[in-house]
Amino acid sequence: MKNFWLNMPTEIFFGKNQIEVLGKQLKKENVKSVLLVYGKGSIKRSGLYDKIISLLAENSIKVTELPGIDPNPRISSVAKGAELCRENKIDFIIAAGAGSVIDCSKAIAAARYYNGDPWDFFIRRTSVKKALPLCAVLTLAATGSEMNGGCVLTNEKTLEKLPMGSVRLKPRFSILDPVYTFTLPKNQTIAGIADMMSHVFEQYFSYPDASLQDHMSEAVLKTVIENAPVVVAEPENYEARADIMWAGTVALNGLLELGKEGDWATHMIEHELSAKYDITHGVGLAILTPNWMKHVLDEKNCYKFAAYGRNVWNITEKDDMKAALQAIEKTSEFFKSIGLPQKLSEIGIDGSRFDEMAESALKNSRIGTFKELNKEDIVEIYRMSL
Amino acid sequence: MKNFWLNMPTEIFFGKNQIEVLGKQLKKENVKSVLLVYGKGSIKRSGLYDKIISLLAENSIKVTELPGIDPNPRISSVAKGAELCRENKIDFIIAAGAGSVIDCSKAIAAARYYNGDPWDFFIRRTSVKKALPLCAVLTLAATGSEMNGGCVLTNEKTLEKLPMGSVRLKPRFSILDPVYTFTLPKNQTIAGIADMMSHVFEQYFSYPDASLQDHMSEAVLKTVIENAPVVVAEPENYEARADIMWAGTVALNGLLELGKEGDWATHMIEHELSAKYDITHGVGLAILTPNWMKHVLDEKNCYKFAAYGRNVWNITEKDDMKAALQAIEKTSEFFKSIGLPQKLSEIGIDGSRFDEMAESALKNSRIGTFKELNKEDIVEIYRMSL
Repeated sequence: MKNFWLNMPTEIFFGKNQIEVLGKQLKKENVKSVLLVYGKGSIKRSGLYDKIISLLAENSIKVTELPGIDPNPRISSVAKGAELCRENKIDFIIAAGAGSVIDCSKAIAAARYYNGDPWDFFIRRTSVKKALPLCAVLTLAATGSEMNGGCVLTNEKTLEKLPMGSVRLKPRFSILDPVYTFTLPKNQTIAGIADMMSHVFEQYFSYPDASLQDHMSEAVLKTVIENAPVVVAEPENYEARADIMWAGTVALNGLLELGKEGDWATHMIEHELSAKYDITHGVGLAILTPNWMKHVLDEKNCYKFAAYGRNVWNITEKDDMKAALQAIEKTSEFFKSIGLPQKLSEIGIDGSRFDEMAESALKNSRIGTFKELNKEDIVEIYRMSL
Repeated sequence: MKNFWLNMPTEIFFGKNQIEVLGKQLKKENVKSVLLVYGKGSIKRSGLYDKIISLLAENSIKVTELPGIDPNPRISSVAKGAELCRENKIDFIIAAGAGSVIDCSKAIAAARYYNGDPWDFFIRRTSVKKALPLCAVLTLAATGSEMNGGCVLTNEKTLEKLPMGSVRLKPRFSILDPVYTFTLPKNQTIAGIADMMSHVFEQYFSYPDASLQDHMSEAVLKTVIENAPVVVAEPENYEARADIMWAGTVALNGLLELGKEGDWATHMIEHELSAKYDITHGVGLAILTPNWMKHVLDEKNCYKFAAYGRNVWNITEKDDMKAALQAIEKTSEFFKSIGLPQKLSEIGIDGSRFDEMAESALKNSRIGTFKELNKEDIVEIYRMSL
């Protein structure tokens, strides 16, 4: 285990009707004027928007709104949000929505105090020195953004999609009510499930091994695998929605990566697909993951895929390489069983831009720590996914 | 899953030489005058005491010392520590030692601002409204006190041992360097292992079931079971010591009990043994735990013991009751294999005070949520443990 620092300041209010704490929490923070960031209007249809507005009114907190955040959130929304914060003396941001809304809100929180182009945070031209405080009201179990300091934005001009992060961007608190996820369309539910599982894989398949962190990763995967078919069949099953929601948070709140160096290759090469084709991130991950596994598997690392197979899928095969291959097959079958696409061609992507995307992926950093990927590796993983 | 609130403010600095952050962290808190609380001198033999003193001197922080804290810490030490805090204008407490030292420091932190008898916190006559901030420098993997707000103290006059807790008593930060545990005597190492496993059992065998929390409990148990024989055989194995140390923290930092109502019966009836006979808490737990399991096991709850057996011990038995009995047997065998006593008679305890202890255990609260225990149940568990 490598040395680590754990800092988990985000308070979590989990369960039915936890939205009721919002006013009290904002009062504790002495908030006067909030920016309410949300997406395409699902919070209006569900009644969450009205609830938030009434809680803010009860507490005499001024509201400025930034609606319309895209599923792959754009850097132009960040510039717009930062401007609204300056104009309206915003002292707190409420991100009400899925990971895209929370990520965009984090970037706004940082951009508020930066006079240059917000994209500078993502191309490492600057770092977050100060940020507005924020909270999340989560409506989709997927990204884990509700309890970490990371965000991923898309530059719609350059068609790049890049991550950045800071402890200063960790939400002050997040409200997680599984009931908000009852009305999600199935395609969003299952894309979220692929996203959280991918987060676990990126941290589990990494060095050094760490006994507790790796067993906890297996625990998250088992929880997701047990509950995913239930939420697909019974979208209003509270217990299963709650288990999935909490699994999504733990999958990326830092606990699984302590003392390890995550791989994140699949995410980096998926971001190219989302940036170029505006596809759903979780769908891209579900397609790429089994092919990443097959491509990187070798004699040296097969013990880890075998451990995954035995501890998560109860595979009894004694030979590590055989158990590893069975585990990868189980992963594919699982994604298929809950209705996720298996191939890029199913979602309208052909091979015409593989070279360009591989080059772009490698432009800003090296890719992969469990096994480093060069351009040929990335193109091959795309090709296997066609 | 019940609704829950997660609040985890304690920062963790984990790994080799992390003590070096101490001065910087205290400076960040603007500390001028600390109370250094420690035990019977092991931190002097290991060099940790000298290191702390030199870091404080480098940062011009005044030190008042409270040495000599007992393994079952006494309420008289709390009164003494609170008095030292008032006299010396202490603004921060450093607890350097095992759980006993950290627990005592928490009670001092609370008692500093309370003019009555500090035992009042433990008999629920008052609650913690204000407390001095504190940090822990951990030297024994066991209690998890380094990342939670609880403490257990002994009243040496009444021979009671009781818990209390508050979010205000969570350490600001804790320093966890596995190297400090290299020189522990074997009996302390294994008692710590029994303690952390018992913490997991108290939360795992509880209602309602919660998929992720329960699988994470299994993850902690697997980590401990895999690494315990290694630290017993190779006390200076860094990786195994690190895995055990982190498991001890996660076992009781709140994550495993989220949305559940822990049982804690075994702890409550062990506290009577520690209070009356001043035995090592972990040893008492190791003796009682398998007998508590056997006593509460029934047709309704055997599914949970069976899940424990299958997921932690790889038991393949299909019948729940049979799998449950095998799992309990495995638990006994494991404690024995690492050298823990199996019977109260081995540690000089006879049956003469069982009635008195059972009555005392029930004096302050009901015992057990997984299965509530009455006086006869408690006496029976003691008797089975003789």
